[in-house]
Amino acid sequence: MGGRFTDELWEATADLRAAIDDLEFLTQLGEGSLAPEAFRQYLEQDALYLAGYGKALAMLAVRAPETEAVAFWAGSARTTTVVEAALHEDLLTGGGLPPATSETPEHSPACLAYVSYLIAAAATEPYPVAAAAILPCYWVYAEVGSRLARTAKDVLAANRDHPYARWVATYDAEEFQEAVRTARDLVDAAALDASPKERAAMRRAFAIATRYELLFWKSAFDLEAWDHPLEGIDVHHPV
Amino acid sequence: MGGRFTDELWEATADLRAAIDDLEFLTQLGEGSLAPEAFRQYLEQDALYLAGYGKALAMLAVRAPETEAVAFWAGSARTTTVVEAALHEDLLTGGGLPPATSETPEHSPACLAYVSYLIAAAATEPYPVAAAAILPCYWVYAEVGSRLARTAKDVLAANRDHPYARWVATYDAEEFQEAVRTARDLVDAAALDASPKERAAMRRAFAIATRYELLFWKSAFDLEAWDHPLEGIDVHHPV
Amino acid sequence: MGGRFTDELWEATADLRAAIDDLEFLTQLGEGSLAPEAFRQYLEQDALYLAGYGKALAMLAVRAPETEAVAFWAGSARTTTVVEAALHEDLLTGGGLPPATSETPEHSPACLAYVSYLIAAAATEPYPVAAAAILPCYWVYAEVGSRLARTAKDVLAANRDHPYARWVATYDAEEFQEAVRTARDLVDAAALDASPKERAAMRRAFAIATRYELLFWKSAFDLEAWDHPLEGIDVHHPV
Amino acid sequence: MGGRFTDELWEATADLRAAIDDLEFLTQLGEGSLAPEAFRQYLEQDALYLAGYGKALAMLAVRAPETEAVAFWAGSARTTTVVEAALHEDLLTGGGLPPATSETPEHSPACLAYVSYLIAAAATEPYPVAAAAILPCYWVYAEVGSRLARTAKDVLAANRDHPYARWVATYDAEEFQEAVRTARDLVDAAALDASPKERAAMRRAFAIATRYELLFWKSAFDLEAWDHPLEGIDVHHPV
Repeated sequence: MGGRFTDELWEATADLRAAIDDLEFLTQLGEGSLAPEAFRQYLEQDALYLAGYGKALAMLAVRAPETEAVAFWAGSARTTTVVEAALHEDLLTGGGLPPATSETPEHSPACLAYVSYLIAAAATEPYPVAAAAILPCYWVYAEVGSRLARTAKDVLAANRDHPYARWVATYDAEEFQEAVRTARDLVDAAALDASPKERAAMRRAFAIATRYELLFWKSAFDLEAWDHPLEGIDVHHPV
Repeated sequence: MGGRFTDELWEATADLRAAIDDLEFLTQLGEGSLAPEAFRQYLEQDALYLAGYGKALAMLAVRAPETEAVAFWAGSARTTTVVEAALHEDLLTGGGLPPATSETPEHSPACLAYVSYLIAAAATEPYPVAAAAILPCYWVYAEVGSRLARTAKDVLAANRDHPYARWVATYDAEEFQEAVRTARDLVDAAALDASPKERAAMRRAFAIATRYELLFWKSAFDLEAWDHPLEGIDVHHPV
Repeated sequence: MGGRFTDELWEATADLRAAIDDLEFLTQLGEGSLAPEAFRQYLEQDALYLAGYGKALAMLAVRAPETEAVAFWAGSARTTTVVEAALHEDLLTGGGLPPATSETPEHSPACLAYVSYLIAAAATEPYPVAAAAILPCYWVYAEVGSRLARTAKDVLAANRDHPYARWVATYDAEEFQEAVRTARDLVDAAALDASPKERAAMRRAFAIATRYELLFWKSAFDLEAWDHPLEGIDVHHPV
Repeated sequence: MGGRFTDELWEATADLRAAIDDLEFLTQLGEGSLAPEAFRQYLEQDALYLAGYGKALAMLAVRAPETEAVAFWAGSARTTTVVEAALHEDLLTGGGLPPATSETPEHSPACLAYVSYLIAAAATEPYPVAAAAILPCYWVYAEVGSRLARTAKDVLAANRDHPYARWVATYDAEEFQEAVRTARDLVDAAALDASPKERAAMRRAFAIATRYELLFWKSAFDLEAWDHPLEGIDVHHPV
């Protein structure tokens, strides 16, 4: 090819990313018109997601072959766990959103499936495949964030405290975009040493994770819930 | 309480298990009237599931505190991977079922979510919690198998080569029921050493896995598929 | 090359294996003249070693890319944990050996270093490297066992209950030799898919583990002990 | 008891720590009179050690039960990997030390045993035990660093670029001492939720790691080497 391996990954998932771009959730998020319930569900689920994402990143650090990669994934695990959790804490308690429906919300079906998939990949797949699975959460977010940042400017101009716009600004931050570039570089480097079988698995993993990105946002807009929530189960039994 | 901890787990999930008992999939499986397409989808997904289940069991062996537990989980990982894969191979190629729609079928949404959850739990949760997550696949299967075995006798009397009845007979086998008893004993033993926090997490994990059992069967009956199957993604790109 | 990768590994460690062949421990073990204290220390340490080796094997099963490999490593983890532990239990309590010096003997320096190395490799290295690290324990043992079996015949002829000779016979068993062949095949298969960097790491891992085999036997003969045994540490503090 | 669990750990290892305090290596390091070869061997081995230590810390992050702990261990994995590696890089190339004897020095026996033990504990033991194993490297270092810092002041007064004194100053830094306090707090918190069996294992793990601290320093002073270094093995075989 000559090109970067991650360019291949990106092109192979064009349809999925087009579907993401078409999501009503993102359109309304950028315009500031999203139902507060959907935004709250999204943030609650994102906090649960990030806790697990941090663990997947830490597992990547355990398995990474080079010092630079170990340091990046471990640092990302820390950032994910601390900084982003704090952001959401702030947003969830900061007003402007409806109150939480539960003190300990359960992972939604899409959230549990996505985060479990990433941790499972990090625990069982070769490092290059696990790294490819991790990448869409960075990269797709960064793309969506950059795009929304433009529309968000108008929203912020009208209301500088608008919670959606503040969220969007975070993912457009240069620091985050820089992390995305490093993550891409590491996946490209991993692809160079990977066998053809592993590169095929990298493509699958990247596509699966991108598809989960789509489902994650969609499920927040749909206020997706379990037919049988756990809430009714645990309480009958004393700890 | 005085009773066994696993009895608590069982009772706490009564509603979920009632929903399993009510599944049209299982009724038709026992009666031998299930659509062959649904049975094939079920077996294909079960083979994919068992491959991952074997990895979750091997991870439990890595983390188990006592020799007996290490040996059981490791032996179960082997049995799961070899014997049951062989059974399904046999059934999938044995005729009486419609041909496969794909040489390398993709995990269904329910299958990928379930097996990822188990591996992720085994990789990140304390051993007692991971063991509790593993248990429903044994225990619920054994219960369903025993129940179906009774109706299956009539089906086998009419047609001794009926593929559904042969499947049912496997899960009613004494060897499998014995494995279920050992798995329960190990979870009870783990609960004795677990902290209150861990026991609460064991309850959640057991309930989540039981709920996935329900979804797994339901998804086969519904011929659940992804809106965006991977098949259209990988092929465009040379390895 | 054309040859098998494991042949390369074998030849590269010729010096280490010659040093193993020269060990006074093995000469005396084959002749039945080994000091009972050294044999007891060896068996005690081997039991501790096998417990950890079983965990390293289970971790390999978690990480193995193909069903056959998962099944073999998981089955080996079970066999290691159960069958060989039982053998040693039998030997340790079967008389003919001096009584145990401690109910819960501590890992010797060589034993703890070796078993920790294998588990650490299985947890952090790519699968082919971890598999190469696991191999010497199978292969070197099988070679040593076959060689000793010949001299052991004379010892058994004179005394059919001689504990050393019974031990030797175990590792010369066809079942064990068959497992060694499978383990070699899996390492060769892993090498085919491995990158040059990984193959270099496989060579290092195989050599390191072979060196630990040498040290493990040597340390039993030397009755190696810690300058600061744990025994004096734990007992001062109530649980 | 009423006291902190880590106080128990500390007292139980008084003999080992006294042996550390008596090490000729540390006395000479503080006085600036250590043979440069020993300091170089120490730094080379420490760099290899820290690479593995970072992986053990990342594994702790994977297994930690609370957000705060995940963030701390992941951040520590990053710091260990990046900052301390940079320090050693600087020292190793900074002059004042004899040239490296090898471009890719091998782990010494003590270094490989120690770092393997920590990774293996993090991969197989319950989280509280793994955390206890990690602690001595922080705590004992901090104590030794504080003590040496006092003697190092005189050395620095005489020669402000003295490489030993700069090293000592690092481990006396307030930032490092703060990290030690957090690590201790996390181990104390883990002990609260641990079972009696786990707390006994925590004591063993802390003592084993403290003993390895002793051996690590001692082995640098003794210029410990393998009877069969790897260097003569790999080179005979083309990659």
